[in-house]
Amino acid sequence: MRRCVKCKEKASIYLPHHRLSLCSQHYVEWFEERVQRTIKQFGMMEKRDRVLVAVSGGKDSLSLWQVLHRLGYEADGLYIDLGIGDYSAKSKELCKKFSERIGRKLHIVDLSQELSTIPQIKQLDSRPACSFCGSIKRYYMNLYAKKLGYTVVATGHNLDDETAVLLSNVLSWNLQYLERQTPLLEEKDGFVRKVKPLCLLTERETALYAVVTNIDYIEEECPFAENATSIDYKKIMAQIEEKSPGTKLRFYLEFLRKVRPALSSGTQPVTLKPCSVCGEPTVGEICSLCRIRRKLSVKTQNITELPDPSP
Amino acid sequence: MRRCVKCKEKASIYLPHHRLSLCSQHYVEWFEERVQRTIKQFGMMEKRDRVLVAVSGGKDSLSLWQVLHRLGYEADGLYIDLGIGDYSAKSKELCKKFSERIGRKLHIVDLSQELSTIPQIKQLDSRPACSFCGSIKRYYMNLYAKKLGYTVVATGHNLDDETAVLLSNVLSWNLQYLERQTPLLEEKDGFVRKVKPLCLLTERETALYAVVTNIDYIEEECPFAENATSIDYKKIMAQIEEKSPGTKLRFYLEFLRKVRPALSSGTQPVTLKPCSVCGEPTVGEICSLCRIRRKLSVKTQNITELPDPSP
Repeated sequence: MRRCVKCKEKASIYLPHHRLSLCSQHYVEWFEERVQRTIKQFGMMEKRDRVLVAVSGGKDSLSLWQVLHRLGYEADGLYIDLGIGDYSAKSKELCKKFSERIGRKLHIVDLSQELSTIPQIKQLDSRPACSFCGSIKRYYMNLYAKKLGYTVVATGHNLDDETAVLLSNVLSWNLQYLERQTPLLEEKDGFVRKVKPLCLLTERETALYAVVTNIDYIEEECPFAENATSIDYKKIMAQIEEKSPGTKLRFYLEFLRKVRPALSSGTQPVTLKPCSVCGEPTVGEICSLCRIRRKLSVKTQNITELPDPSP
Repeated sequence: MRRCVKCKEKASIYLPHHRLSLCSQHYVEWFEERVQRTIKQFGMMEKRDRVLVAVSGGKDSLSLWQVLHRLGYEADGLYIDLGIGDYSAKSKELCKKFSERIGRKLHIVDLSQELSTIPQIKQLDSRPACSFCGSIKRYYMNLYAKKLGYTVVATGHNLDDETAVLLSNVLSWNLQYLERQTPLLEEKDGFVRKVKPLCLLTERETALYAVVTNIDYIEEECPFAENATSIDYKKIMAQIEEKSPGTKLRFYLEFLRKVRPALSSGTQPVTLKPCSVCGEPTVGEICSLCRIRRKLSVKTQNITELPDPSP
């Protein structure tokens, strides 16, 4: 029988890549300490920061919100209602309930009012939904953080998310994406600081934390994410991790420590300027959100230009 | 029906990542041209070079030998008899037959005379056999190339070999291994130049070439390679390639083009000096071969020190 390394009671959790056995109570402690250490290690934020946690209703973002709150950070939530039928309705309710439970404010952005719902945009955009949905969420997270006076945006990306993206960027050696892959993106040119305090914790670890601390989260995947290539890369990383535990963590940390600095010294820094339509920072003339907005307005015009079918 | 892009006859071969259909005859032409272009692209060698091809009896090395010979290079073979039972006996015979077929000299190094057989060394060395067997082969390839006056050693590593190693080195971010991962290692400090002219051709492509040109090669894997981790990485790269053809080639070429130069500028160059025992170049005091030799002699001494069981 495995015993908890802290209290010697029966362990209920074993973490192979840390060779660590813990009971539920000490697991929660370990998890929260690890988040705090990660924040410190990368210099992500201070207690005086005003933190906006981007919450989706899933285990990662709600766990993150809870941990930050428990660690004493001023952390409120931002929920972007993507308008994806039942999935959005249910996840919004879970975020509201959770915000009441921890007694912190939840801001809600309604995409159908701001722009259009993801299913409607999907009809106009041939890209995989995850691709433009990601840009849209990043845009509103940043915009509302600035509007509402938050100094940091925190997202619930975990080690599995980060290593899947890292593997994908490494296979194509996309140096600009690799250069941006860091758990701390400093405030710059109209961007609020962005941090990923769960980046050293696996998906399984976050799920365990959510379960043990009774967080009510949405278990379904987003219906649009079904064929996302990131899921393939997660499966591949899982295969590798199973054969040699610790690979994911080493792959990510050594990248940050040794490789990213070497690569970024060789890449041209990206020059950002205000979007000529909305004024938000972008690399081109018009930001990706305004390009979607333009497509949507063209579509609406086409519809209104149709002849009236009634006589 | 797919047709050969060269002669419009029925194609017998389709290469998805090149979107190329070819008949057998034009496939052979395409393959040999691709090897020649690879040699040129990386500046691997000239027609005036004396080339020693490291042959194992497998499809890659025998195909390489044949292509180099047909392209007009002065290419002889070096076979290292590892003493692995039937596997070595059979592969040696195939190399001999092949050398007669193309009318080029085959040099044979007998490891049981030089050092000891791989199965015997395996009993003393806890590392996976592939690990020390690789060092041993590299040692004798280099030593005999110098002794016999060859200017280049050519090995049959294909794109699958190279990308499996690259993936493994990337997952651990071993910068010194990454820096050495190149299809052309220049002559330096007692090392003969080493080249991998098949590095842009997949295992499947080499196998096809061997089959179409009737090369009699050993199909069995080495019995010691069964659990080699390189095989896992090959499987993973195959999964990725199946989902998005061309990934392997891009992963390897972009690494060589963009990443290796950036990384190697940051790594300390390795200083080599002559091994204090044999004089061959090494990073430490004693080269890995002499360390194996020492273990073998200790073992032999232990045996001779045993009391004689007969009265």
